[in-house]
Amino acid sequence: MLEAGTFYRENQSCLFRVWAPLCKQMVLHLVSPEDKEIEMTPQAGGYFVADIPNLPVSTLYYYRPDNQQDYPDPASHFQPEGVHRPSKVVNHHSFSWTDQAWRGIPAESLVIYELHVGTFTQEGTFEAIIPRLQDLKELGITALQLMPVAQFPGNRNWGYDGAYPYAVQDSYGGPEGLKKLVDGAHANGMAVILDVVYNHLGPEGNYFHAFGPYFSETYKTPWGKAVNFDEAYSDGVRDYFANNAVFWSRYYHIDGLRLDAIHEIFDRGAVHFWEYVGQKLRRESMRTGRKCWLIAESDLNDPKVIRSNDTGGFGFDAQWLDDFHHALYVLIHEGGKERYADFGAIHQLQKAYEAGYVHSGEFVKARQRKFGKSSAGISGEHFIVFNQNHDQIGNRIYGERLSMLVDFDALKIAAGALLVSPYIPMLFMGEEYGDETPFYYFVSHSDEELIKMVCKGRKEEFSAFGNCDDAPEPHDISTFKKSVIAWDIARKGKHKILRDWFKKLLRLRKTHPALQSLNKNHIWCNVAGQNGLALYRRSEGEQHLLLALFNFGPETVKYTLPAGTKWGMLLNSDDPCWQADFNGAEPATAADDVKKTVSVKPLQFIILEQQNQDITN
Amino acid sequence: MLEAGTFYRENQSCLFRVWAPLCKQMVLHLVSPEDKEIEMTPQAGGYFVADIPNLPVSTLYYYRPDNQQDYPDPASHFQPEGVHRPSKVVNHHSFSWTDQAWRGIPAESLVIYELHVGTFTQEGTFEAIIPRLQDLKELGITALQLMPVAQFPGNRNWGYDGAYPYAVQDSYGGPEGLKKLVDGAHANGMAVILDVVYNHLGPEGNYFHAFGPYFSETYKTPWGKAVNFDEAYSDGVRDYFANNAVFWSRYYHIDGLRLDAIHEIFDRGAVHFWEYVGQKLRRESMRTGRKCWLIAESDLNDPKVIRSNDTGGFGFDAQWLDDFHHALYVLIHEGGKERYADFGAIHQLQKAYEAGYVHSGEFVKARQRKFGKSSAGISGEHFIVFNQNHDQIGNRIYGERLSMLVDFDALKIAAGALLVSPYIPMLFMGEEYGDETPFYYFVSHSDEELIKMVCKGRKEEFSAFGNCDDAPEPHDISTFKKSVIAWDIARKGKHKILRDWFKKLLRLRKTHPALQSLNKNHIWCNVAGQNGLALYRRSEGEQHLLLALFNFGPETVKYTLPAGTKWGMLLNSDDPCWQADFNGAEPATAADDVKKTVSVKPLQFIILEQQNQDITN
Repeated sequence: MLEAGTFYRENQSCLFRVWAPLCKQMVLHLVSPEDKEIEMTPQAGGYFVADIPNLPVSTLYYYRPDNQQDYPDPASHFQPEGVHRPSKVVNHHSFSWTDQAWRGIPAESLVIYELHVGTFTQEGTFEAIIPRLQDLKELGITALQLMPVAQFPGNRNWGYDGAYPYAVQDSYGGPEGLKKLVDGAHANGMAVILDVVYNHLGPEGNYFHAFGPYFSETYKTPWGKAVNFDEAYSDGVRDYFANNAVFWSRYYHIDGLRLDAIHEIFDRGAVHFWEYVGQKLRRESMRTGRKCWLIAESDLNDPKVIRSNDTGGFGFDAQWLDDFHHALYVLIHEGGKERYADFGAIHQLQKAYEAGYVHSGEFVKARQRKFGKSSAGISGEHFIVFNQNHDQIGNRIYGERLSMLVDFDALKIAAGALLVSPYIPMLFMGEEYGDETPFYYFVSHSDEELIKMVCKGRKEEFSAFGNCDDAPEPHDISTFKKSVIAWDIARKGKHKILRDWFKKLLRLRKTHPALQSLNKNHIWCNVAGQNGLALYRRSEGEQHLLLALFNFGPETVKYTLPAGTKWGMLLNSDDPCWQADFNGAEPATAADDVKKTVSVKPLQFIILEQQNQDITN
Repeated sequence: MLEAGTFYRENQSCLFRVWAPLCKQMVLHLVSPEDKEIEMTPQAGGYFVADIPNLPVSTLYYYRPDNQQDYPDPASHFQPEGVHRPSKVVNHHSFSWTDQAWRGIPAESLVIYELHVGTFTQEGTFEAIIPRLQDLKELGITALQLMPVAQFPGNRNWGYDGAYPYAVQDSYGGPEGLKKLVDGAHANGMAVILDVVYNHLGPEGNYFHAFGPYFSETYKTPWGKAVNFDEAYSDGVRDYFANNAVFWSRYYHIDGLRLDAIHEIFDRGAVHFWEYVGQKLRRESMRTGRKCWLIAESDLNDPKVIRSNDTGGFGFDAQWLDDFHHALYVLIHEGGKERYADFGAIHQLQKAYEAGYVHSGEFVKARQRKFGKSSAGISGEHFIVFNQNHDQIGNRIYGERLSMLVDFDALKIAAGALLVSPYIPMLFMGEEYGDETPFYYFVSHSDEELIKMVCKGRKEEFSAFGNCDDAPEPHDISTFKKSVIAWDIARKGKHKILRDWFKKLLRLRKTHPALQSLNKNHIWCNVAGQNGLALYRRSEGEQHLLLALFNFGPETVKYTLPAGTKWGMLLNSDDPCWQADFNGAEPATAADDVKKTVSVKPLQFIILEQQNQDITN
């Protein structure tokens, strides 16, 4: 119920509240501008509070539990000097929001662009993103998704080592910078989704142990002890994280949260943590009128994740559909089989389109067990699909993007497969123009032991997939610098062509009635041989029918079109204007008539449109 | 899919199948009557098989995985020489079942009698129980529930240290003995429920590690590593335990399983283990026509346990309702507050009657967290209630039954509270006549270290509740012998009176229309002061209304009866015939007229019946 943190009021007083249920005493140590110690007052639920009038907003402070030593605030809103130094009070009333007219966007209009703040621009800040919003908007992007921005050690990190879930990374521009970016995105009609991590806390700068039983002895995660969501004293831990979800909506106007690896959150309690988070967010939404989506990264293939609480589900609005990636990737990249031994059949892509999860109960070699449950019938807005994301790229020892693994035609067919899907598509920064910068794994810990462990761990993890001798050192600053994307090349040559291809597909997706319905009654597929797929998309009113034809193989595939209807060509990846070396003007595609059979060449992608209403299907 | 175990056929051949997914080789070592080694054949799913024609049914055997050493069969049906010695082939076709006409009983007619085979009779065998069935039937019992009978080390154990889930304890009489008991129970119109343990395996005689990855590294239980229900190779483990559930129904005609501590079974998989077990049992039931209830011991207070799979539940038919016990016990025993600090208010008993779980989301001191979810509206046949069970008695260092803690009137009101409840009642052996034998904790391990650990562990566990210096030693044979119940005293004095009281209440429960409906629309309560409770039970057709009046306090409670109706007295615990020293003939209660107010004395329990239809509620 109670919230931990600092609550700076318009009358310049500030309430400090910290949760430390096993501590007898708590001192608030103001260190700047004035050095002062204040004994805090215990409150029900294991909290300590101090209410300080006339507090300078630049105040830096520590907490001192049970007279041990000074620690930063676990619920700090800002760590201007990093994870080991004092916390800073933030006045959330001082920012001048201009997004009063922002009403959000419907889930089915989402086109997400995942970016890493540190490597999206040379500056590596929130503010440096703002000038690029117009460009993304023109492309057809409707939501940014920021990799985690919670304070992490040093100034280079993917963000999953954050140790202050409420503090906005200082080197990215801190709280003020993030607010400016969100306000700017809303001004451009774009939502902002934030990646947050509730399944573990980063190893460096993590002083949680001094405050309370944040960790469980019962469950283990790949990163060590699991967070305590269901044992003694878990109420405070649950509130700490659930309030964090509300915090981003309330103070930063964030439109959605992407919850990292929800399968590593263990909760046997009768009210599951995700149900609790959902309840809190709905209450906040009622108050503010702002919706905040909950998006899961889930390795469960369990429809429970996206089912409502009423029907025993976790109640997520959507989840990442990794199976779509795997099914598609292995079809276009020969080497994909090494990583995804259980994928590679064309009917798996069909299943990904028609049902969602590809693994829905069958034995999966990589897991050595039966895995998943059918998601057939679940509407498409509950799934987010992608051809690449930070993990699929960065969790390769050499950080190769798809553009570094497959050729131009494969990039085009992959983009087509993504953007005609009945799901919410997500791009990874630079994907739209085929950026060829690697996305390496990088850190900037200050703990030497930790640095060694990270390097060793990465090499061990990836040694199965090839030689790791030349692997970039995560801690080397050049590893980070080499990962900064090459935004400017998007204006030139094949990069411009690819970007135009994405833009064309996104416009079609936005405007064509047959691509609007994410209801699974309006989509079906036929496979043709080992490598061909025909995907039908029908509009809600059944007046419009699109047919996307794919050929992922090395031989031409012949499709016989359904009888009794005329088809026009809407898009053809083999048109001269979509070739990497095309030099002409703005590409245009005429709606040609199509005969009864269509030959689709290797890696060709075609969209046909029904021209009359005689189709019986 | 595949089942591990031995399958002796009517043609005297026998299929041996063992699961050992990481083993390269498996030898079947027949040790008697003939000594012979047979190399087994690997099968899909990590199994090895050998099909032996003309096998003597008395055959003893071991398995030898990867040429290490001989071990008994983890899926052994019989360990005639204990947990460390060879397994024995069992011919399940040889028993002559006489229960062809047995059709089971409806759940709402269940009155369960929990018993421990070793201490229910002097003999401590299945067969010795059979002569007592008639007596239990006359009392009103409709189902036996046997504490676990899976082979455990030595010959004295509660059963929760079993290391062979498929083998029937040799000292109880083995497979033949259990079949005779079940057949005898069915002949007496009684069902048999078996307590089974799938959350851990006993420490002694547990050779599972030699065969496969039965245990998980991710979760911990109070007894060590959790069973692997969701990680690599878990398919074989899931089948091992799920097939065990089917096994009892198929070969022993068991009518229900009581699943021990289901909250210690961890499964993140999309098809939860309980859903999987339910599927298998339903399939078996379709085949045989025999139903097998699934009853959970759950420490979750989560209605998901008893909700159907369709609505995201585990699909148990029923679960133990510990909260009913705690709520009632603390009201009748002053010392109860020590163990159940979160109980003791009369409205908690009201909530237990009306809704089920007493803790449904509130903060619980003993757990230091919010606990549970409401079970309001869930029909009563999904809950099993008791005033005592093996845990509530035996998990006291001195093993005191209720009869050793409270006086005769308190036993009577407790029986009344239990048997007018809208739930399935369960008695613990001897409870019906107020047996005063303790039910101690006893073991007969052969491992000295283990024996010391058990003694130390028990003392540590219970030291919070008083002096443990005189605690009986679990391993001492006299501890076991002192726990054998004093069945014969049921014929005499106060024991006979109490037994008659139970019998009277059970007859009323069976015959009175107002006690038939377990639907929560037909029950409600009013509390009167700190210690009085009025419980209304209405029949399905609303023609009959009972009113049970309780006084758990030291002062008389006056109840004003609803106006506009006449009430007759059905049962009064203060009648001379229900006094501990009553010497008269078979007791009889006249349906007296009752006036507008009723005074209920301390620990008095009264049942009134509505005499006309004018009541407005």
